[in-house]
Amino acid sequence: MADKTQIQEAIKIQGEVVRKLKSEKATNDQIDEEVSKLLALKAQLGSDDGKHQFVLKTPKGTRDYNPKQMAVREKVFNTIVSCFKRHGAETIDTPVFELKETLTGKYGEDSKLIYDLKDQGGELLSLRYDLTVPFARYLAMNKITNIKRYHIAKVYRRDNPAMTRGRYREFYQCDFDIAGKYDAMIPDAECLRIVHEILSELDLGDFHIKVNDRRILDGMFAVCGVPDDKFRTICSTVDKLDKMCWEDVKTEMVKEKGLSEDAANQIGQYVSMQGGMDLAERLLQDSKMSQSKQACAGLSDMKQLFSYLQLFQVTDKVVFDLSLARGLDYYTGIIYEGVLTQAGATPAPPLQARAGDTLDGVESVSVGSLAGGGRYDGLVGMFDAKGRTVPCVGVSIGIERIFSIMEQKAEAEKVRTTEIQVMVVSAQKNLLEERLKLVTELWNAGIKAEVMYKKNPKLLSQLQHCEESGIPLVAILGEQELKDGVVKLRTTATREEVDVSRVDLVQEIRKMTSAV
Amino acid sequence: MADKTQIQEAIKIQGEVVRKLKSEKATNDQIDEEVSKLLALKAQLGSDDGKHQFVLKTPKGTRDYNPKQMAVREKVFNTIVSCFKRHGAETIDTPVFELKETLTGKYGEDSKLIYDLKDQGGELLSLRYDLTVPFARYLAMNKITNIKRYHIAKVYRRDNPAMTRGRYREFYQCDFDIAGKYDAMIPDAECLRIVHEILSELDLGDFHIKVNDRRILDGMFAVCGVPDDKFRTICSTVDKLDKMCWEDVKTEMVKEKGLSEDAANQIGQYVSMQGGMDLAERLLQDSKMSQSKQACAGLSDMKQLFSYLQLFQVTDKVVFDLSLARGLDYYTGIIYEGVLTQAGATPAPPLQARAGDTLDGVESVSVGSLAGGGRYDGLVGMFDAKGRTVPCVGVSIGIERIFSIMEQKAEAEKVRTTEIQVMVVSAQKNLLEERLKLVTELWNAGIKAEVMYKKNPKLLSQLQHCEESGIPLVAILGEQELKDGVVKLRTTATREEVDVSRVDLVQEIRKMTSAV
Repeated sequence: MADKTQIQEAIKIQGEVVRKLKSEKATNDQIDEEVSKLLALKAQLGSDDGKHQFVLKTPKGTRDYNPKQMAVREKVFNTIVSCFKRHGAETIDTPVFELKETLTGKYGEDSKLIYDLKDQGGELLSLRYDLTVPFARYLAMNKITNIKRYHIAKVYRRDNPAMTRGRYREFYQCDFDIAGKYDAMIPDAECLRIVHEILSELDLGDFHIKVNDRRILDGMFAVCGVPDDKFRTICSTVDKLDKMCWEDVKTEMVKEKGLSEDAANQIGQYVSMQGGMDLAERLLQDSKMSQSKQACAGLSDMKQLFSYLQLFQVTDKVVFDLSLARGLDYYTGIIYEGVLTQAGATPAPPLQARAGDTLDGVESVSVGSLAGGGRYDGLVGMFDAKGRTVPCVGVSIGIERIFSIMEQKAEAEKVRTTEIQVMVVSAQKNLLEERLKLVTELWNAGIKAEVMYKKNPKLLSQLQHCEESGIPLVAILGEQELKDGVVKLRTTATREEVDVSRVDLVQEIRKMTSAV
Repeated sequence: MADKTQIQEAIKIQGEVVRKLKSEKATNDQIDEEVSKLLALKAQLGSDDGKHQFVLKTPKGTRDYNPKQMAVREKVFNTIVSCFKRHGAETIDTPVFELKETLTGKYGEDSKLIYDLKDQGGELLSLRYDLTVPFARYLAMNKITNIKRYHIAKVYRRDNPAMTRGRYREFYQCDFDIAGKYDAMIPDAECLRIVHEILSELDLGDFHIKVNDRRILDGMFAVCGVPDDKFRTICSTVDKLDKMCWEDVKTEMVKEKGLSEDAANQIGQYVSMQGGMDLAERLLQDSKMSQSKQACAGLSDMKQLFSYLQLFQVTDKVVFDLSLARGLDYYTGIIYEGVLTQAGATPAPPLQARAGDTLDGVESVSVGSLAGGGRYDGLVGMFDAKGRTVPCVGVSIGIERIFSIMEQKAEAEKVRTTEIQVMVVSAQKNLLEERLKLVTELWNAGIKAEVMYKKNPKLLSQLQHCEESGIPLVAILGEQELKDGVVKLRTTATREEVDVSRVDLVQEIRKMTSAV
């Protein structure tokens, strides 16, 4: 054990390291790293004193939400939940941890990112890694074959956090899924309509929604001469096209993954294609593509999808893009991703991926992915003893990314963190009782109101509090007002004051705050 | 390792055990216990087959919320949050886990109930045990000296679950706290007003709110001759008075805790006292009680409190009760508890305790505690390197208890789990496109609407879905309606149908659903 002086010396040195990084404008991640070492050293020292040995911080990769952030969060959630409800979704909730074996074998090599709980006797537990696997477990366990549900909750990944870019170890997922055996592409089209509605309403900037189909990708690989056992790895290289140029992608395919130059060139021609229903039609006629049964199935579904999207009035934003190849293994049909078109104005942290997205998958959506999803018809069957499947299609809104954009927007603005409509204040001393009486009248009428918890607060400090917190109205009580049976009602913004008879007060406040 | 036949035999026997318990009407806890053993055996067998080895269950002491339960939960939360907002509270959120050392030393012997995360490298983490310690950590870390905040989130305790009585290992807490240096008893009184508002609005049955003060209890123990070092243990015995008679409590004091017969008798006289401001006044004159400075400070604050409660119009439900002695070590002033007066009609699971409540404390509130709280002026100082304190007073709503009562009430009722206002249906075949077009018009207008995801669903099954899900309106499209430019609007409840011109449809739906 190091002695006190040694630790103090180490603290001094570590302090220098932090100062140096700051002066060199190092990344926040680097600074965070060194600051936490410094705090740990200080804590060690503190424990010698025996009393205040706490390191005052949240765990790595997590954060508190302060009231302003919560107000932004609430606004975003309201928009999203209203949309889900407009489309008839129910909601469910599942525990934050699952039996470890429920998560085992679902996330491929990402399983190393799962938080396990300590074995304290009893069952072995892990924190949920996403909401999709718990949803599938819920459906199988309750033998549910039909449901349209949303689920908003935190998930946990022992990932390398990049908090300045909106990437955390504890973060929200916000999922909408439709489970059930239905006619092709109708629920799939509704998912796209939902992405369109949410991204339009949140007003984050211009966006488009890329769509593709796992069957089209696989068919394309087949006709281009990719060996079966290389489909997945080539797919994950294609997935990098949104942050790497084609030349680099091709090099990776040929040099690293051992694909033939010829096959790579053929893929290159296809993945540059973008379009709509017309492209699907053209590819159905394509001499090579039409040789793959799988691709043809995907392409005629794509045509069908676009016809529904037209009816849903969202084709303005939807692009059939052959380069879209989401990392997830479990997708079986259509896949999609909503992205900001101009990522320049806002930061572009990578979207936290859904279940099973490989790290590569996560990195590759860094241009500004705000929503993603697809069809996964096989997952529920993995939980059913008899392998009964329930077809599912869903979308996950990249809510943490949206929070960072909205928070940044909100930084400049004044965001109210309470909903108080009126503050009851007194002009003279010794009016606490009268204030409490009046605020009670207001509470009884359902008005959001407060008083200062002081016997004799200064009028000025009460009025200042209203201006700072954006409380729109002030109800002022003084000797004269009490005698006259009135309350002086002050509008914070204009500082106008009117005397309102006590019996009309509630009515008047309602009128004035509904207009505000 | 047991072979397959052995396991199959064990499953057979265990199956018998479960059947026997069920036929004997054993408690659900007992049955759950044996069923989980049975499931574990089956899982063992399953793993031999190599494929579907999952035990389809949630971890012990946890549950999923289905859509109906979520609808109830949302309703309860809305009532509570509206009240918190009416009183000007902001909200914050903190991570689900904290550094282990943040929780260390805060919960006494209950620390053994804390869930630790596995050491996977990096920081040692624990799931939060309550919301109060994270709140105190948040205040100290951000040097906040003034805040009125609520926090609704799940907390975790490796307790013995009794799920049929609403007691879980993962459960919600719902806390409102006022931090800051204010004039005595004003924020304390507002907390009581909030308990009164919430319990009134939730309409769970008749209730009252017991209040006492830690200083009055301590003063009472002192003047009754309880040795200083026995205050806490005698206090926890007093805390059992709501489920044990005085004679048994006295026996415990004298026989188990070694208190003198005389001291116990003196305590017995005090703890039978109940009243209001009058009782506080009488005790201030009491020859013994008035000898304790602490008791006198508590009693004059109690008088002050009741004068504010009168102004807040809540004295009808508040009782000054000298037997109330909440388990928590960290209370420094007023304490209170809202309880159902008639626990007979509804089940009475014990309220999940706040931070540091001893197991005894939990057991003792089993008569029907729905809310509890008090003043804790020292906790934040434990996190401050310089020991700076922030006085706090707060209340925790016993939300899980409230859920069980509400869920039980809802069992008989039909609870809607979606908010769909209108379902767009077709009377004949081949009208999918027309349905999609119409539902899009409705979504564009912000109407909550849905269609069946089938090309040619039967009219009857579409109408049945509306009746079952309580969708109030049905918009029926047929060849004739399309020709006439109308939609047949059907009221599900009455089965009345009217033709509405397509241009007036949105207007008409709004009118009819706002009246519904």
